Amino acid sequence: MAAWIWYFGDLELYHSCRMHMRRAEYDYHFPPFWRLDDAHRNVVFRRECELAQAGAIRAYAHGQGMLEVDGKRYPFDGREIPLSAGRHVIEAKLMSGEVPLLFVDGAVESDESWDVTCYDGRWVKAGMNWYFRHPDKCPVEFPFAYAPLAPAAVEAVDGGVLYDFGRESFGVLTLGDTAEETLLRCGESRQEALSDEAIVQARIPAGGEARLTARAFRYVWVSRDVALTAESELLPLPRRGRFSCSDVRLNRIWEVAHHTFHLCAREVFLDGVKRDRWVWSGDAYQSYLINRYCFHDRETMRRTIIALRGRDPVPGHINTILDYSFYWIMSLEEYRLMIGDDGFIDRLWPLAVSLMDYCLARRDENGFAINEGNGWIFIDWAEMDKTYALCAEQMLLRRALEAMARLSALMGEDGAHYQQAADALAEKIDAFFWDEEKGAYIDSFASGKRNVTRHANIFALLFGYAGDKRERILHNVLLNDAVPAIRTPYFKFYELDALCQAGYQAEVLRRIGDYWGSMVDGGATSIWEEYSPDEPMDAQLGMYGDKFGKSLCHAWGASPIYLLGRWFLGVVPTSPGYATFDVRPEAAGLDWFEGSVPIGPWVGEVHIRVQGDTCTACATVEGGTLYWKGKAYRLEKKVAICVGDAQ
Amino acid sequence: MAAWIWYFGDLELYHSCRMHMRRAEYDYHFPPFWRLDDAHRNVVFRRECELAQAGAIRAYAHGQGMLEVDGKRYPFDGREIPLSAGRHVIEAKLMSGEVPLLFVDGAVESDESWDVTCYDGRWVKAGMNWYFRHPDKCPVEFPFAYAPLAPAAVEAVDGGVLYDFGRESFGVLTLGDTAEETLLRCGESRQEALSDEAIVQARIPAGGEARLTARAFRYVWVSRDVALTAESELLPLPRRGRFSCSDVRLNRIWEVAHHTFHLCAREVFLDGVKRDRWVWSGDAYQSYLINRYCFHDRETMRRTIIALRGRDPVPGHINTILDYSFYWIMSLEEYRLMIGDDGFIDRLWPLAVSLMDYCLARRDENGFAINEGNGWIFIDWAEMDKTYALCAEQMLLRRALEAMARLSALMGEDGAHYQQAADALAEKIDAFFWDEEKGAYIDSFASGKRNVTRHANIFALLFGYAGDKRERILHNVLLNDAVPAIRTPYFKFYELDALCQAGYQAEVLRRIGDYWGSMVDGGATSIWEEYSPDEPMDAQLGMYGDKFGKSLCHAWGASPIYLLGRWFLGVVPTSPGYATFDVRPEAAGLDWFEGSVPIGPWVGEVHIRVQGDTCTACATVEGGTLYWKGKAYRLEKKVAICVGDAQ
Repeated sequence: MAAWIWYFGDLELYHSCRMHMRRAEYDYHFPPFWRLDDAHRNVVFRRECELAQAGAIRAYAHGQGMLEVDGKRYPFDGREIPLSAGRHVIEAKLMSGEVPLLFVDGAVESDESWDVTCYDGRWVKAGMNWYFRHPDKCPVEFPFAYAPLAPAAVEAVDGGVLYDFGRESFGVLTLGDTAEETLLRCGESRQEALSDEAIVQARIPAGGEARLTARAFRYVWVSRDVALTAESELLPLPRRGRFSCSDVRLNRIWEVAHHTFHLCAREVFLDGVKRDRWVWSGDAYQSYLINRYCFHDRETMRRTIIALRGRDPVPGHINTILDYSFYWIMSLEEYRLMIGDDGFIDRLWPLAVSLMDYCLARRDENGFAINEGNGWIFIDWAEMDKTYALCAEQMLLRRALEAMARLSALMGEDGAHYQQAADALAEKIDAFFWDEEKGAYIDSFASGKRNVTRHANIFALLFGYAGDKRERILHNVLLNDAVPAIRTPYFKFYELDALCQAGYQAEVLRRIGDYWGSMVDGGATSIWEEYSPDEPMDAQLGMYGDKFGKSLCHAWGASPIYLLGRWFLGVVPTSPGYATFDVRPEAAGLDWFEGSVPIGPWVGEVHIRVQGDTCTACATVEGGTLYWKGKAYRLEKKVAICVGDAQ
Repeated sequence: MAAWIWYFGDLELYHSCRMHMRRAEYDYHFPPFWRLDDAHRNVVFRRECELAQAGAIRAYAHGQGMLEVDGKRYPFDGREIPLSAGRHVIEAKLMSGEVPLLFVDGAVESDESWDVTCYDGRWVKAGMNWYFRHPDKCPVEFPFAYAPLAPAAVEAVDGGVLYDFGRESFGVLTLGDTAEETLLRCGESRQEALSDEAIVQARIPAGGEARLTARAFRYVWVSRDVALTAESELLPLPRRGRFSCSDVRLNRIWEVAHHTFHLCAREVFLDGVKRDRWVWSGDAYQSYLINRYCFHDRETMRRTIIALRGRDPVPGHINTILDYSFYWIMSLEEYRLMIGDDGFIDRLWPLAVSLMDYCLARRDENGFAINEGNGWIFIDWAEMDKTYALCAEQMLLRRALEAMARLSALMGEDGAHYQQAADALAEKIDAFFWDEEKGAYIDSFASGKRNVTRHANIFALLFGYAGDKRERILHNVLLNDAVPAIRTPYFKFYELDALCQAGYQAEVLRRIGDYWGSMVDGGATSIWEEYSPDEPMDAQLGMYGDKFGKSLCHAWGASPIYLLGRWFLGVVPTSPGYATFDVRPEAAGLDWFEGSVPIGPWVGEVHIRVQGDTCTACATVEGGTLYWKGKAYRLEKKVAICVGDAQ
């Protein structure tokens, strides 16, 4: 089957670049503060073929150029180009100020078996995506789906009209006429839409119909009574993961998380939809894990990984953040586990090596990753002693080094130096950051403050670095209310993941209720970037010095999807691409729950239902093993199994 | 004074890239077969300033972004932004899918003193051009000048209408209505416009008025009787060089050459205007020399040098041609001599070093530059023995190495390794390529054919490599009709330059008459890409396998401007930027001649008149020395001097 093709990475970088240009706040645009790579301008696609019988092809392109068949030239106008039986060489020479794209169908079809060069002396395999299989659906237009959005309520306020669309939305707003200048303000909250300080607003000059670029809103205030129509703009992702249980509030949390995540899954996995709408590596790493339990969408994951890394030479840490380079490397292992070997990691491997080289070249004499002054040590929005080397950064570096060692083996390369560096770092971490008296890892050794936060300790548990310190860390830090609580859903993700791993599912359910539950009870229709259950919701809309700066729809808030899928439905791949997988359901006090977890990027799922002591499971693919009440059961393809306590 | 600014190189690469996309032949587009770099997408401009008194600025941009004044953000909408007296930091964060461009005026003005980064951790000085001094004249539109073109003749032919615009032109054609589908064919010759095989043609679908992208034509044939209007599109370059003499045919040659060169001087110095309209390094090198004697336009020279080189890493030889990499390096020395030290060479120096590294890494064990299989050994359109290492290539490599050695000294670097490589190469050239018996350099030693062409021998003379072989080379090769004549104006340039250098001005005048004169006598209104005086002109319109493939307006044909300026008016810089210059007029049998040669890129000229034994000269700048009849005279600024034989 024919598909549109491009130089590997080009389409992803093109759309990422254009998307990153669209952030606007108040009356200015706000471009990212890192380098963004774009598509190549000038490429050649090439395919040699042997036809058993005569046929014809048609060629289409985005850009300027020509198709050469055995040296004879044709335009890209879809005309029928005859091919005799026998051997042919087809080359498409193509140039574009946007992104060069090719579609050939007929006796020879464009797909990722075609070679392509950007005139650097090397040929690589073309990039492709099965979304784009029609010559008239050129991928230079990103294939969002559109549907009308009706307001839940309309009222006259402040001399204008306020529309409430009932829940967080993202889409295109159209003003029917703009006979006079019109001011339009979007709000994720009612307060925001009614404030001069709304982050997303537009002053539309008098003119005809005005169709605005897509943006986030629940509320829209318009200064005049003028026809306003709204269409949602979403990635058309089929719903695959499902969860429901005896706790209706938990069901509501799951749905709100799913809505949040769907809104943020666009050209790439975004951090949030209102404000920056950029791609951030740490946020994206969590999105990959959440995606595994709902859409299992390989394409957005690939686009995100490509967009984050860009091209060599490495211009700096990803998103300028030290930790975010490490997450990017870790994400390759997550991709491999989730998707299996589809050749994608091979293509990115040189970029992984050069990024790790960049990181390794910037360590201090102890092998610690440090801030060189022009980067950003993030970890979390939290009070933390960030003096010199930070423990949490070293944990991430160690984890990334281990990933490089394992990936090296997959690539048939010697990764011993990565493992050696990881082992040496492990010793140094314990020597410099472990506080035997506190029974915890400290943030920083350089300041002498020996401050303890949850973050490094969570990583120690999560990455299996705690060893015999495990119980002490759990009780001294994670289960110790005297250590300041995590305030972001971002790090809640890792904290609850670590607690589940340690068997504290019931505690995790309680914490999900306290944090996400209170947000949803308070009327949130999507999960916030940051949230304190102890403060009134209206009093915590600000962030970054802006009255409405906080994103109220942030992908990292969707972690209950991951937590419930991973630790309650209990599905986890045990070899790449789910060739084998475990199903270890855990009720943790729920009367009943059921759900589906997708297995593999295109099709495949496991359905699990637990009621009391009885568990029913059915997988549509081979390779699963169900664990229930201490026993293991092989899951036959499409055969439901029902096991109880007594079996 | 404020000007538009950009990341150094961005605007030049942007326009080059877009221009290179426009080549169309018959019904397909024809992109270049080498990598083309584009502008950066995302940059920051920065300026710190200290204001003695309060003021205001206005900012404009091409792209999306914001201006930050001491951290406070503003849009680029030209609003007045107040600045208090004292110290300020101004940053413009800007992103564009085309090219990020900034204009700031008022109390602080944008110019090349601003810093700019592409987020690669380095700040460089901004690019700028004094053409662009108005906020409403954004340089994303290339500033061509337009003027109506009236046809010299209109006739009904072949069921359509043929327009003859009287001479070679380049511009925009507009069809007043296209009620029916209309076929339009351009021709540099009448035959071409009347042929299905016209290179430049367009099938315009039925519709309203159709304004076609600018193209080359003398003749235009339209299939229907429909209103056609034409506007020339030219770079608005003031005429500075002038020449006239007692030989009216030579005057005509000079004018036709000047017209040819002006048509080809556009975003860059193009090879020709009809067909590929690309930038070629070998052609461009000659354009720099021709430019020196007519427009003396620094800007087009800079744009051409930047566009040819692109960015690192080196993707291959410039235009994929080995010799063309060497000419690029040589062009830096030509720039320096012609313009002086304006900082431009400093900025390109890292790119010169990496290009020469690329060349040096690809030599054989003798140090010879060879074809590695994926490059192109051009030298000239001529029969030549191109087996393995070619003598003419080694001459160019030696010349480029010497340029690198001298430029290293200017950059304050040690260039001894370049000089050593040049010296070693000189010995090897004589050992392998000098044929004592033939008294000439042979093309190639590897084939055993020991074939002699003019090319390497011309370089040996021109670059001063001939030593005591000089007379033998002159008589055995350049003045020997048994050695095949040069067929292109391209290599005629070097041949005649070498003959002038050897004092054969009269012979050169004769050859200009034979070659250019016969072209002009035959009705050429611009100089051809290739020409044989021995064949009927109508029989030599083809090239590259196309019936009308030859360019009839090719910049390399304009060399009489250089030859007459350099060797007859006799003006030559003797130190960078014409701080000193010689004027050595040479009548070579002409009864009289006079002319002007520009001195320096903006203003300045020398006017020379020779009549019989009397020479009159006047320079508008200091630094000149007139040599006449064996005597030297200092040229005082704006003081005419008249010297005769008897003085």
